[in-house]
Amino acid sequence: MDTFVQTEKTTLKRRHDRGTFDRDTVYSILDEAFVCHAGFVVEGQPYVIPTGYARVDDQLYIHGSAASRMLRTLAQGVDVCVTVTLVDGLVLARSAFHHSMNYRSVVVLGRAQVVKSLSEKKAAMRALTDHIIPGRWEEVRGPYDQELKATLVLRLPLVEVSAKIRTGPPVDEESDLQYPVWAGVLPLKTFSETPVRDVLCDPAIPVPACVSRYSR
Amino acid sequence: MDTFVQTEKTTLKRRHDRGTFDRDTVYSILDEAFVCHAGFVVEGQPYVIPTGYARVDDQLYIHGSAASRMLRTLAQGVDVCVTVTLVDGLVLARSAFHHSMNYRSVVVLGRAQVVKSLSEKKAAMRALTDHIIPGRWEEVRGPYDQELKATLVLRLPLVEVSAKIRTGPPVDEESDLQYPVWAGVLPLKTFSETPVRDVLCDPAIPVPACVSRYSR
Repeated sequence: MDTFVQTEKTTLKRRHDRGTFDRDTVYSILDEAFVCHAGFVVEGQPYVIPTGYARVDDQLYIHGSAASRMLRTLAQGVDVCVTVTLVDGLVLARSAFHHSMNYRSVVVLGRAQVVKSLSEKKAAMRALTDHIIPGRWEEVRGPYDQELKATLVLRLPLVEVSAKIRTGPPVDEESDLQYPVWAGVLPLKTFSETPVRDVLCDPAIPVPACVSRYSR
Repeated sequence: MDTFVQTEKTTLKRRHDRGTFDRDTVYSILDEAFVCHAGFVVEGQPYVIPTGYARVDDQLYIHGSAASRMLRTLAQGVDVCVTVTLVDGLVLARSAFHHSMNYRSVVVLGRAQVVKSLSEKKAAMRALTDHIIPGRWEEVRGPYDQELKATLVLRLPLVEVSAKIRTGPPVDEESDLQYPVWAGVLPLKTFSETPVRDVLCDPAIPVPACVSRYSR
């Protein structure tokens, strides 16, 4: 099994059974989700900001306006924590106490680097676009150099990484197993609804396959 | 309009048009989502951890094992940032550069307080259970005192709070409006799938209404 190196910081403090450093497991979570929560500190105050991301090999890319405080802060190379969470279901136990959720999450610790070359910026933007909706990049107008220059792209190396997963049924007390209430898991999933055409978009243009066949 | 007080820390640094301090807007986002990402600092390193939560009036409750590092850290009254994000859709522009997402997010800054009284702990657990799946509390086995004692419940007052929202169609450059590609929004929504009965649950027990009629 190919794994990320376990460090003091990424060692789970409890529920070790839920933790994993398996590379393929980490990749699959990062590739299925598309919004992360980035945590960083400004003058002692932690901030947690949602943003899109994409993985290319062992790099996580995030991007945005060069005026974004989050990106400008992270560009300084401060410590960051990027967390990605997929909620797979509600775990409904017989006791209130043992209610839980099934989830898969990844925590990435490290320091981001500014992507300077326009070609890597462009490759990152392609990955970001196609990660949100595969195949979209090829059909849209690609970025102008001036747009690439106005975009701050950061690269966070996947080095200090861990995943945490809960799956399966509720775990009740033995003494509650006969309690007369339904127990089990209610699976949750994200679906797309009917695409909403921009009113400025020519009705003769068909909905592309990447939109009509979208699934997460 | 009843609003949260805007502070230096909760003032958006850009895109002020997307920010709001409206109390009802903040409440509606907090009440629709059920997983937050809590950010805190340990020895200079920010950590971002997903967890369930519930709102009761102007308090946000989170809870977990008294052995949890996150909860033990937050229980010390350190600065915390709790962020809640709902992704409403993919914004598909004509240019790669103007791709975006529609979302609603809330950021809560502050310091958590430990809930000590068993009655407030119990009320918080009820809110946490019924926030995830309304009506569940009444049908399950309520918490024993020993379970309440093993649970660390924290209260984060909703004082320094802001919301950020993007809605609507893509905003493309005027010069791209005739670009021959579909543009619009692909709405996303979380749905429940068929409930999975615990193999230890008597098949004669019907699926309760809170499960069969669940919607987010």
